[in-house]
Amino acid sequence: MDSLRRLEEIFSHFPGIGPRQAKRFVHYIQGKSPTAVKELTDLIQEVKKNTGECNQCHRFFTNGSKTCTICSNPERDQTTLMIVARDSDFETIEKSAVYKGLYFVLGGTVPVLDKEPDKKIRLKSLLERVNKDGESLKEIIISTNTTPDGDHTRDILKDAIKKIALPQTKISVLGRGLSTGAELEYADSETIRNALGNRK
Amino acid sequence: MDSLRRLEEIFSHFPGIGPRQAKRFVHYIQGKSPTAVKELTDLIQEVKKNTGECNQCHRFFTNGSKTCTICSNPERDQTTLMIVARDSDFETIEKSAVYKGLYFVLGGTVPVLDKEPDKKIRLKSLLERVNKDGESLKEIIISTNTTPDGDHTRDILKDAIKKIALPQTKISVLGRGLSTGAELEYADSETIRNALGNRK
Amino acid sequence: MDSLRRLEEIFSHFPGIGPRQAKRFVHYIQGKSPTAVKELTDLIQEVKKNTGECNQCHRFFTNGSKTCTICSNPERDQTTLMIVARDSDFETIEKSAVYKGLYFVLGGTVPVLDKEPDKKIRLKSLLERVNKDGESLKEIIISTNTTPDGDHTRDILKDAIKKIALPQTKISVLGRGLSTGAELEYADSETIRNALGNRK
Amino acid sequence: MDSLRRLEEIFSHFPGIGPRQAKRFVHYIQGKSPTAVKELTDLIQEVKKNTGECNQCHRFFTNGSKTCTICSNPERDQTTLMIVARDSDFETIEKSAVYKGLYFVLGGTVPVLDKEPDKKIRLKSLLERVNKDGESLKEIIISTNTTPDGDHTRDILKDAIKKIALPQTKISVLGRGLSTGAELEYADSETIRNALGNRK
Repeated sequence: MDSLRRLEEIFSHFPGIGPRQAKRFVHYIQGKSPTAVKELTDLIQEVKKNTGECNQCHRFFTNGSKTCTICSNPERDQTTLMIVARDSDFETIEKSAVYKGLYFVLGGTVPVLDKEPDKKIRLKSLLERVNKDGESLKEIIISTNTTPDGDHTRDILKDAIKKIALPQTKISVLGRGLSTGAELEYADSETIRNALGNRK
Repeated sequence: MDSLRRLEEIFSHFPGIGPRQAKRFVHYIQGKSPTAVKELTDLIQEVKKNTGECNQCHRFFTNGSKTCTICSNPERDQTTLMIVARDSDFETIEKSAVYKGLYFVLGGTVPVLDKEPDKKIRLKSLLERVNKDGESLKEIIISTNTTPDGDHTRDILKDAIKKIALPQTKISVLGRGLSTGAELEYADSETIRNALGNRK
Repeated sequence: MDSLRRLEEIFSHFPGIGPRQAKRFVHYIQGKSPTAVKELTDLIQEVKKNTGECNQCHRFFTNGSKTCTICSNPERDQTTLMIVARDSDFETIEKSAVYKGLYFVLGGTVPVLDKEPDKKIRLKSLLERVNKDGESLKEIIISTNTTPDGDHTRDILKDAIKKIALPQTKISVLGRGLSTGAELEYADSETIRNALGNRK
Repeated sequence: MDSLRRLEEIFSHFPGIGPRQAKRFVHYIQGKSPTAVKELTDLIQEVKKNTGECNQCHRFFTNGSKTCTICSNPERDQTTLMIVARDSDFETIEKSAVYKGLYFVLGGTVPVLDKEPDKKIRLKSLLERVNKDGESLKEIIISTNTTPDGDHTRDILKDAIKKIALPQTKISVLGRGLSTGAELEYADSETIRNALGNRK
């Protein structure tokens, strides 16, 4: 394969990008000045080089130390650990500014029929963390998507954590019900059941 | 206006129908056999004639008595009353088969800036019902959309009911949080806050 | 089936309407005043009663005579006949105000695999018309959708008309190419071929 | 701005990419192996280095010579020149395999209110080409989008070319009418007019 086709192929694996848009990306780059193209490749290299995985929560960050700014912030609530699947989930939660505890990024989810969860998510590393934190951990919040894969991952996590967490550590999941802006008429039966069960 | 234009106009007020589709409805009827058109108008008249408003919950029903099949069913939980805005909300809840109590249909919602709630919803009738049921009423569940109008209506109902309900009657609203199939990454901050606040 | 379900079913056959919206139509009618419902059924009956099929072009019209206002208008170009599939196509053409001749409404199209075209469209009646008009007919314009069914119908019409039309009668089809607002990059190959072949 | 934000910003200028997806691109790159990231930046640099602008048609190509494979192909019809706005238009036309002549890529279009067309498109270079080709040029096909900007660009090109082309050189534009798959009922009046005017 020549370099043009190979670059198209790589772009077509970018999140949300198909073959046609990948081709447009290549044209876009071909039409840019050499200076602009050099800035792009330099930045990609620089960002990648500066990107570290936090040795506590495993999210990507770029401040050059081993532990990210949240994990090393003493003002965060050290007794609560939220488990999320991906960096993008972490960012959405953090942007909402309602959670003050620590995080653990799984690095993915376990598909419903998958037999080897440990290859898809950082399960071993998570359990070591829970074990090490011991009695200082008052609550573990499992924050997965409410999709089949997310629910499956939640169940795997719950089972695995229950076996090793101390009895006083609460294991919770995000509340389910009507999302903001929902119209009752179009809600599915499971959401109705959750909204009714979680009424208050 | 001739009858053709007037019929188009009436169809254009049907829920979800615009002028173009209203025109297609008229063509569709013009192309039907006289027998089929007669069946349609007979059915519309018959359904309208047989439609009563239940004297308890105010929903439309067609069994010919004054009280609907749910309100007159002794097996329904007589101690719980769910308030919904419209018949279509009632149907979605009933289809989910998770609620076993009684209903009250408001007949609408109160827009955010509306000053006269009593003209948009059956508030007076609702309060009479709550008053009459008295201590037999253990819980009132307000089930409105989580839209601005729905939230506004919920607040109006809560205030009005609190003033007249007995202290032992619980007033609740549907739980909020992640709906089924939600992806955390795309959740709005208010939904995150609700999902976190309602974790369990 | 009770009248409520039957009315829902009839509405669900209206153009573009599914079961859920059909149900909302029924609710909408149930919630209307008896006067409004009577106006609706009276108008439907009236429109149907007044609707005639023009004995020349076969479109629906409501002026009470046997021939529609266009077919009986001496100012229309009597030498040109446009064949369209449906009344709605006729209306779109007429609204564009660029065509000054007469029409013939087929009443449908012939699906690609259909073996009996005469049951789907007014082919016999069309051929009688072409035959009767004879040498006064200078051009027949076949205006079908450019979909597979439309193209199939066009081919059937072309073959049938050629056999009986006088040699001096031109048989034409609508021009193909780029529609207004089209972006070349997203055009399909057949449209490109037509646009190139019809360049001018 | 740190390198992370700057890279996000650059990605957000890629065609069809907004801020949110740009952020996901950065995450995607952060999660890739160093080898994969190096392959990406190497390919971008290589493609850019190998990309030349053809000295005849001005499209991007990568075969290392000064003239592209189409312009230097003696089997292409040397008497016909098609003018397109962008490389992506060239690719769509070429993929349809119906055009056998040569191309000229304008490099853009002239927005409707723009006063300086020469800054947006390679007008001067185009006119030199037309001038140089002289009587060997039998036809110039202007293939612009049928959008307001495309039509405006077409008018500018027509005027400018007419002034300098030889009288025997035909100047044509792509045919307009119904595109493949079009439904007559939903066609706009201008498309109807074109389809009728270009009937055959």
